[in-house]
Amino acid sequence: MTPASLLGAASARRRLCGAALGLALARAGAVRAQADPLPSWAEGPAKARIVAFVRAATTSGSGGFVPPAERIAVFDNDGTLWAEQPAYVQFFFAIDRVRALAPRHPEWQRTQPFRAALEGDLAALAAGGEQALLQIVMATHAGTTPQEFQEIVRDWLATARHPRFGRPFTELVYQPMLELLAYLRTHNFKTYIVSGGGIEFLRAWAEPVYGIPPEQVVGSSIKTRYELRAGVPTIVRLPQIDFIDDGAGKPVGIERHIGRRPVAAFGNSDGDFEMLEWVSAGAGPRLAVLVHHDDAVREYAYDRHSSVGRLARGLDEGPRRGWTIVGMKSDWRTIFPPATR
Amino acid sequence: MTPASLLGAASARRRLCGAALGLALARAGAVRAQADPLPSWAEGPAKARIVAFVRAATTSGSGGFVPPAERIAVFDNDGTLWAEQPAYVQFFFAIDRVRALAPRHPEWQRTQPFRAALEGDLAALAAGGEQALLQIVMATHAGTTPQEFQEIVRDWLATARHPRFGRPFTELVYQPMLELLAYLRTHNFKTYIVSGGGIEFLRAWAEPVYGIPPEQVVGSSIKTRYELRAGVPTIVRLPQIDFIDDGAGKPVGIERHIGRRPVAAFGNSDGDFEMLEWVSAGAGPRLAVLVHHDDAVREYAYDRHSSVGRLARGLDEGPRRGWTIVGMKSDWRTIFPPATR
Repeated sequence: MTPASLLGAASARRRLCGAALGLALARAGAVRAQADPLPSWAEGPAKARIVAFVRAATTSGSGGFVPPAERIAVFDNDGTLWAEQPAYVQFFFAIDRVRALAPRHPEWQRTQPFRAALEGDLAALAAGGEQALLQIVMATHAGTTPQEFQEIVRDWLATARHPRFGRPFTELVYQPMLELLAYLRTHNFKTYIVSGGGIEFLRAWAEPVYGIPPEQVVGSSIKTRYELRAGVPTIVRLPQIDFIDDGAGKPVGIERHIGRRPVAAFGNSDGDFEMLEWVSAGAGPRLAVLVHHDDAVREYAYDRHSSVGRLARGLDEGPRRGWTIVGMKSDWRTIFPPATR
Repeated sequence: MTPASLLGAASARRRLCGAALGLALARAGAVRAQADPLPSWAEGPAKARIVAFVRAATTSGSGGFVPPAERIAVFDNDGTLWAEQPAYVQFFFAIDRVRALAPRHPEWQRTQPFRAALEGDLAALAAGGEQALLQIVMATHAGTTPQEFQEIVRDWLATARHPRFGRPFTELVYQPMLELLAYLRTHNFKTYIVSGGGIEFLRAWAEPVYGIPPEQVVGSSIKTRYELRAGVPTIVRLPQIDFIDDGAGKPVGIERHIGRRPVAAFGNSDGDFEMLEWVSAGAGPRLAVLVHHDDAVREYAYDRHSSVGRLARGLDEGPRRGWTIVGMKSDWRTIFPPATR
C-alpha cells in the first residue's frame, strides 16, 4: 500500500458494501420471518435463553422488563462477531503495514520485531511477546489522523483475504450474530462493541458491517493530540498507549464510554470474563453469553490451549454463574453469510 | 453530608424531578407551539441562524442537508447550559465535600489547600491555582465507585443552593438551551455534553435535567480500576487524572467518545474555542455558537477579564469565522425555567 491509497477510500467504501448487504439481508430476514428472528440459530437451550431474555426485557410488567434507556448490550468483536483464527485480523493488518511502510524505514531490515514481520516469521514475532506487538502497532498505527487511518484500514480490508477461507475478513463475520444484533436493535437495545482491538480500526468498518456507529465502539486506543497543521485543525495519532480494553479493562472501558452497566454481554474468551462478570453482577435480569469455538470443520475448534482467544475460566465457571455457552457446532446452523461476489 | 447520605439516592432522585419537569415542559412547549419551537429565544439573527441551520439539515435535497447518523451536536456545560458564576458548581461541591470528609482527615486543618477550603478562604484557594484545585478534587472525588459518587452528587444537589439566586443549581439551567436541546432532538440530532467538568459529576444529573443519557456525556475524568471487593465486582475511582476535557482536549474527547466530527457546537468561553474550531472546519454545513454573558441584571456579565469562563479570543475571532454570538440580554427572553417549588 502506498500513500496514494489514502485516496482510495471511496472505492474501499464501495467494496465494503458487500458486507453491508449481508447485514441488510440479515435485517430483512429478521423482519420477514417474524416467527423466527434468529433463523441461523438451531433450536436449543442457547437460543431459547436469548429469546426468553429479550421477550421478558420488552414485556412491560414482566419480572424481566428492562426500561428502553437501560437496554444496553455489549459485544466483544474478535471471535465473537468475526473470526479471530489463525491470528487477529488487526495483526494481519499490522504486518502488512510494516511491509507497506518498510521502504521509508530501511532500518527495519535489521531491527526486531520489524524484520520478523517483513520476513513473515511468525515464530520470531511470537517470541517477542506483547512488547513486540506493541512496538509494531505504535510504529504502524500512529502519525496519521483517525480519518486517514480509517481509510488505510478500509483500503486494506478491501483487498486482504483470509488465509484459509480466501474471503475478505469482513465476510467472515458470524451470520447468527448479525441476526442477533438486528434482533436486539429491533427491540430497542443499543448495541456496543467492547473490544481489545483498536477503537479506530473497528470504527473504520463497524457501521457498514454490523450497523454499529462509531460512537458505540469501545476499544483499545493510542493517545491523540489536537493541533493546527498548516492552519488546518487536525487530530494526530501519537505513538503512546492510552488504554487497553481487555480483561479487567473492559468494565473500565464500559464505564468510561457508556456510564451505566449493560444488561447483556457477549464474548468468547477469558479476555471477556470480567466484562461478563460485571454485567452479570448487576441487579435485575441479565444475559451473559460465551461463544465456544468447537467447529473445526466449518470454522475452528479451540479453547483452553489457544494463544488466540483462550477460553478456560469461562468454560469452568460460566455455567454455574448462569452464563450461556453457545456451541458453534450445534447451536449455529450457518457460520458465515453467503459470499457476495 | 455523612456516609449515611449515600442511602438517600431515591429521595435525591425525587427532588431532581423538579428539574426534569422543567425539561418536560420545554419539550411539551416545543411540540405544542409548532410555529415557534424556541419561544424563549427573541426574534433576531441568532435565532434565525439556528432555525435556518436545522431546517436545512433536515430538508432532504437542500444544500445543507445532514444525514441523520451525522446529526451530532455538542454542548459545553458550565456557562452554556447552566450558570457558572460566581464559581463552577463542581467547585462548590468539592468545597462541601472537603467539609463533609474533614472529620476523617484531621490533618486538613493544618494543610493547604484543604484548610483554605474549610475556612471558605476563596482567595487562598485561588492563590493555589489549578494545582490546589486538582488536589481537592483528587482527595474528595476518588475512593468511591462511580455509582456511589453519583449518589453523593445527587444528594448534594438536592440541598445545595446558589449563593445569589437561592435556588438549586439544577434549576439554574438556561431555559432557551433546554428548548434548543429538545428542538434538536425532535429533528433527530444526538445531543452530547462535552465539558471540562467531571464526567461522573455530570452523569449524576444530566439525564433528568437535560435529557442527555450517560453515554452522551464527555468530560474530564480520573482513572478507575476494576476489582473484586469481598467478592463483589466493583469499579473504583482512583486519585489520578485520566483526561482533561478542556481547550484542545475537547476535540480529543470528541474523537475518543464519538468518533466522528459533530456538525454543531455550543460553548461560551475560550475553553470551547478549539471545539468550535474543530466542528467548524468540517466539510458541509456547520453551526458554531457562543453564548455571551452580558446580562448582569438577570444573570451575570463577564467575558475578557473573568477568571471563570473567560471569553476573549472567541469574541475577537468568532464573528469572522462565521460563528454566532448569542447575547443573553437581547437574544434570550427568559434565562431560567420557573421555580418548581
